[in-house]
Amino acid sequence: VIVSLAPFNEDGLVEAIESVGAKVGDLEAADALVWTDPSDPQALKDTLDRTPARWIQLPFAGIEKFVAAGAVDTEHLWTCTKGVYGPACAEHALALMLAASRYLQVHARAKTWVDSDTGGPERRMAGATAVVVGTGGIGAALVPLLAPLDVDCIGVNRSGRPLSGARTTVTSSELDSVLPEADYVVVAASMTPETKGMFSTPQFDVMKDDSWLVNVARGGLVETDALVAALREGAIGGAALDVTDPEPLPDGHPLWDLTNALITPHIANTWDMALPELTKLVRRNVEHFGNGEELEGLVDPEIGY
Amino acid sequence: VIVSLAPFNEDGLVEAIESVGAKVGDLEAADALVWTDPSDPQALKDTLDRTPARWIQLPFAGIEKFVAAGAVDTEHLWTCTKGVYGPACAEHALALMLAASRYLQVHARAKTWVDSDTGGPERRMAGATAVVVGTGGIGAALVPLLAPLDVDCIGVNRSGRPLSGARTTVTSSELDSVLPEADYVVVAASMTPETKGMFSTPQFDVMKDDSWLVNVARGGLVETDALVAALREGAIGGAALDVTDPEPLPDGHPLWDLTNALITPHIANTWDMALPELTKLVRRNVEHFGNGEELEGLVDPEIGY
Repeated sequence: VIVSLAPFNEDGLVEAIESVGAKVGDLEAADALVWTDPSDPQALKDTLDRTPARWIQLPFAGIEKFVAAGAVDTEHLWTCTKGVYGPACAEHALALMLAASRYLQVHARAKTWVDSDTGGPERRMAGATAVVVGTGGIGAALVPLLAPLDVDCIGVNRSGRPLSGARTTVTSSELDSVLPEADYVVVAASMTPETKGMFSTPQFDVMKDDSWLVNVARGGLVETDALVAALREGAIGGAALDVTDPEPLPDGHPLWDLTNALITPHIANTWDMALPELTKLVRRNVEHFGNGEELEGLVDPEIGY
Repeated sequence: VIVSLAPFNEDGLVEAIESVGAKVGDLEAADALVWTDPSDPQALKDTLDRTPARWIQLPFAGIEKFVAAGAVDTEHLWTCTKGVYGPACAEHALALMLAASRYLQVHARAKTWVDSDTGGPERRMAGATAVVVGTGGIGAALVPLLAPLDVDCIGVNRSGRPLSGARTTVTSSELDSVLPEADYVVVAASMTPETKGMFSTPQFDVMKDDSWLVNVARGGLVETDALVAALREGAIGGAALDVTDPEPLPDGHPLWDLTNALITPHIANTWDMALPELTKLVRRNVEHFGNGEELEGLVDPEIGY
């Protein structure tokens, strides 16, 4: 098996590929391509024209930009990293939930001590309910982190297939019926035409006025203007967002200034965090490929995920 | 059994006391006193002169101010809430650790999007090592929260008695030998003459330059000026402090402005969080008292805890 790395080589990936008996070689002779740039669909399309590789490994899970650009064709076998980065993103979701529970976005900005009298916004996590929207790698990794904190989880996904550790799991069409229970709504779904804008005014209206929206998935899952309105009116308690729409969030955007909003710049899974996990996946998948076994993280081009 | 509440009545406490067959009554006829003010030792001393109560329940765990003021005498049986607020404080310690790992103190203050290139300060929790200094209620509650995050814990206490779930536990005299392993040092010890200022330049010097100090116990356990110097020089990665010395932290103090410091105003366990736990403890202790059983949270006036 000859595997090509493009556009960038990574020493760790080369080692992983060679460790399972495959070779790293030129595009023109490759059986497989590991794409190492999360941001340039056109470059990938141009590269595909130069290689006979049948299998393409993408280095990320949210491939919607590449699908939209027509880079994910039906002539190749595609794999992405779905599930692999779940634990890193779940850690970030937990960090944002706890930050919300302790109002860290306000405390971090403070320049003066404010005595904690009764009635402050800080709350225990214990006894809270989290609605976890999307039950792939992130959701599956988040529930076990919440268990010892005594947080009750409700899963939401397309099929209603039970999220392990959740009290119950409902289908996406039942989302609005479980949102009123949530102290935290964690958005961890993939971005598809079906899920785009799934959080807007009707959803905020049925959420509790002290519940927080946490988004570690894709900015486009949430209607930003509706969110800003909900935050200003107090329809919900707050929003902690690692992803925004538009992204990057422009300077001067109201989300930068709201006391009940916390923005992180898409750091749930940085490249430094991702590379060790990608390396392990590539090693496993190159081995599977060599043995004619099914690959991990197969993409369904029909649903764009 | 007649129990008096002073200086404030709390409906929940009255109910709890009556639910186990005791009566809430006047100071002058009380067998026991539940003190409901965390801040006024002199008022407690004055109150003790007016009551024959033999047992005094304090509403908090860190009683050093009351000990210093001579309010905790040897003529009464004293109980505090040690252990009871551990879970709330452990939640806050976890919130601060995760905030540190994701550099939330910087992101919360940002007004512009900074792309997450490689080499940013954000890190996974998985694989980290936490040194937990003090293994009472907070430390015991924190270790199970860190377990699913794949954080390795080392306990530190006076006796070396094993902290459940920790890889190892060492005595306070061995503190400096385990600090070099820490990615996070969580200060959760009681404040006694022995532990005062236990974190100063020698400790920061042996910590890794990217390790964070998290203090949810008492400000005086850390030498503030030495900490500020360590933060400025990069001797350690950062500090997340729910307690400070002095407290309240004065306006203009350098800790408010350092990019590697996060201050919360003593909210690990607010009165709103505490009251339900205090209520449960009072119910149990009134029942124990009536039955002549040993009380929970007995204070040793000799060691001031």
